[in-house]
Amino acid sequence: MSTATARSLSQRASVMPASPIRKLAPYADVAKSHGVKVYHLNIGQPDVASPETFWKAIRENNLSVLEYSHSAGILALREKAAAAYTAMGIPVETNQLMVTTAGSEALSIAMSVLCDEGDEVIVPEPMYANYIGFAAANAVKVVPILTKIEDNFALPSLEEFEKRITPRTKAILVCNPGNPTGIVYSPEQLAGLREIAIKHGVYLIADEVYREFVYEGGRPQSILELEGLDELAIMVDSVSKRYSLCGARIGFLVSRNKKFMDAALRFGQARLSSPTLEMIGVLAALDTPTSYFDEVRSEYRKRRDLLVSRLRAMPGVVCPDIQGAFYATVRLPIDDSDRFCQWMLEEFRLHGATVMMAPGTGFYSTPGLGKDEVRIAYVLNVEDTAAAMDCLQLALQNYPGRTNQ
Amino acid sequence: MSTATARSLSQRASVMPASPIRKLAPYADVAKSHGVKVYHLNIGQPDVASPETFWKAIRENNLSVLEYSHSAGILALREKAAAAYTAMGIPVETNQLMVTTAGSEALSIAMSVLCDEGDEVIVPEPMYANYIGFAAANAVKVVPILTKIEDNFALPSLEEFEKRITPRTKAILVCNPGNPTGIVYSPEQLAGLREIAIKHGVYLIADEVYREFVYEGGRPQSILELEGLDELAIMVDSVSKRYSLCGARIGFLVSRNKKFMDAALRFGQARLSSPTLEMIGVLAALDTPTSYFDEVRSEYRKRRDLLVSRLRAMPGVVCPDIQGAFYATVRLPIDDSDRFCQWMLEEFRLHGATVMMAPGTGFYSTPGLGKDEVRIAYVLNVEDTAAAMDCLQLALQNYPGRTNQ
Repeated sequence: MSTATARSLSQRASVMPASPIRKLAPYADVAKSHGVKVYHLNIGQPDVASPETFWKAIRENNLSVLEYSHSAGILALREKAAAAYTAMGIPVETNQLMVTTAGSEALSIAMSVLCDEGDEVIVPEPMYANYIGFAAANAVKVVPILTKIEDNFALPSLEEFEKRITPRTKAILVCNPGNPTGIVYSPEQLAGLREIAIKHGVYLIADEVYREFVYEGGRPQSILELEGLDELAIMVDSVSKRYSLCGARIGFLVSRNKKFMDAALRFGQARLSSPTLEMIGVLAALDTPTSYFDEVRSEYRKRRDLLVSRLRAMPGVVCPDIQGAFYATVRLPIDDSDRFCQWMLEEFRLHGATVMMAPGTGFYSTPGLGKDEVRIAYVLNVEDTAAAMDCLQLALQNYPGRTNQ
Repeated sequence: MSTATARSLSQRASVMPASPIRKLAPYADVAKSHGVKVYHLNIGQPDVASPETFWKAIRENNLSVLEYSHSAGILALREKAAAAYTAMGIPVETNQLMVTTAGSEALSIAMSVLCDEGDEVIVPEPMYANYIGFAAANAVKVVPILTKIEDNFALPSLEEFEKRITPRTKAILVCNPGNPTGIVYSPEQLAGLREIAIKHGVYLIADEVYREFVYEGGRPQSILELEGLDELAIMVDSVSKRYSLCGARIGFLVSRNKKFMDAALRFGQARLSSPTLEMIGVLAALDTPTSYFDEVRSEYRKRRDLLVSRLRAMPGVVCPDIQGAFYATVRLPIDDSDRFCQWMLEEFRLHGATVMMAPGTGFYSTPGLGKDEVRIAYVLNVEDTAAAMDCLQLALQNYPGRTNQ
């Protein structure tokens, strides 16, 4: 029998990056197997308990068959979620909302519905690393627009956005409050984005999964509150952070653009449904009292304050102002953030512990950027955060690739 | 302020089909709202209870935070699943297996890892409708190869496959046991596919989610048992049907091709993880005694026997031999299966009940085929199946678009 060489894997497989948040996990596993305590500041996995309402619904469910649910999500959940948005001042109707398998799938579907291979999405960088992954999966071109740590990662001028708009531009994608920067966009900044979107007919996708995590001022404005943007605004949401339910994989894709939602539902039908049991839990979690968020916010504010003060006290470290979410993108006096983060897992120990962080390079689509930055997720309690900062401080003193700053 | 027309949605959004299994749901909803009993033979949603092992693990879980899990799935689940395959005679190592968000995601990732826009996948038709959806999402071209009801949907000759192989062909995709046909491929047929794959270096993707549902002979051969195919064989599996856990959204992507699995994991990292709680339940469900399957198989055999005998007694109806899965693709004396299925939901009633089926057209990628066919999922108990067949029999007598046969 004649044989042929196996055909090549796809181009998109070759450009799909390993997650900067997860790619160092094997080194962390090795360290742990030797008894080392690893403080995980690499991933936005809060240590806050998921709401009791959720657990009660899960533990007391009386189902016999775990069935598929509607491709747009259980109707009761859609109705309740839409009502909850409306109650907080963001008017949403049930048919403008689809339940997705977390924010990840909502973003992926949004990109698929808007973009073909080679179409462009403008994204401020540093950006949530997985946007680069979703774009790679969809063969979509990410067009970055640089924001700077010296400006606390504020959006550049509208002219900078307009310079990047081409006939292939389909959307501008922002994360608000921002992962990995901690920025919360002002109404003026959002108004500017609105103006560009309307002027050029490009869609505005806002990843608003950190809505509850704002430490100065009230609720950040949603993209869905902007006037005259019904056709162009697409909001992505998730219960992962809000209810500390990262493992539930339940999110929402929301838009008033009927054609967009019709297409999104067809993509949803192709994967049948999101996890049914988790939807039942989330249906109950939506009844979580607002005091839950007050406590969570107060706890995260403490963590942020500690983190910022500790980082700013370290020579050569630049920590910007952080207004929301639970991340900081921080400049360190190091030669290479990938090497530094790996070195910390492989070589550095303080009292038998070390810290895992996400190298900054993975949050830029422009090659070469982020080499002196790391993303820190401040998701651990104050005591652990302090211990992690002790590690980082000493590590920076001892790291062989420390730069002269 | 100047305004522009909103930019167009993507080409893939325009070609993404509505699911033939779900698109008529609004008509069913209307019927139900008027008190009509709808027998759902449209969707492979078994009425069999999910295993008690699963429910016990879910209800008695003592988690506090529902965290992300590893992007390849909880290690204990990967180990146990690999061991379970090995125990049944399909040698699989832990690192050759990735947990996915059901078989749907496993298929979608497999396509993404192998194919770029315009690449081709050869699929016998009628095919599981969602293959067409995954291909549309990935801008991959489905190249159908016709199988015929008169042959019980047996695979055509190897020459027919080879005629369709081009430089863009990346894979052959089969479902075994077959949805929507009920065929179980013989070792000879699989050997033929193996020969073609090796000769041309194309990948062989086998969707084996119905492995336990075989009514004649023993376990069907897995693609992973074929010799010399380590680099080319990709197996997709799921607990949806096996354990009646359709709503859990847990599946497996399995291959011995390391480069393929490495790439698949990067796609997995982009979506973070599959649902954690469901993995905990499935970990326990893997301990389900084999007697569970014996009972399930015996129950489905009864349903199949009833369905086949009832259908064959209806004038003008052609029902092929069905060896596995729980579907039949059946020829009916009708003008248009979409119209007929909708008519049954809107117009036809027997004792206040009607039947929902999936129009055959959605299971062909060749336009125009399947107009006189429907897919019937025999997932209801014998009594309900009999009542549904009473409905179908009378409906065929009364349907205005009945053809002369």
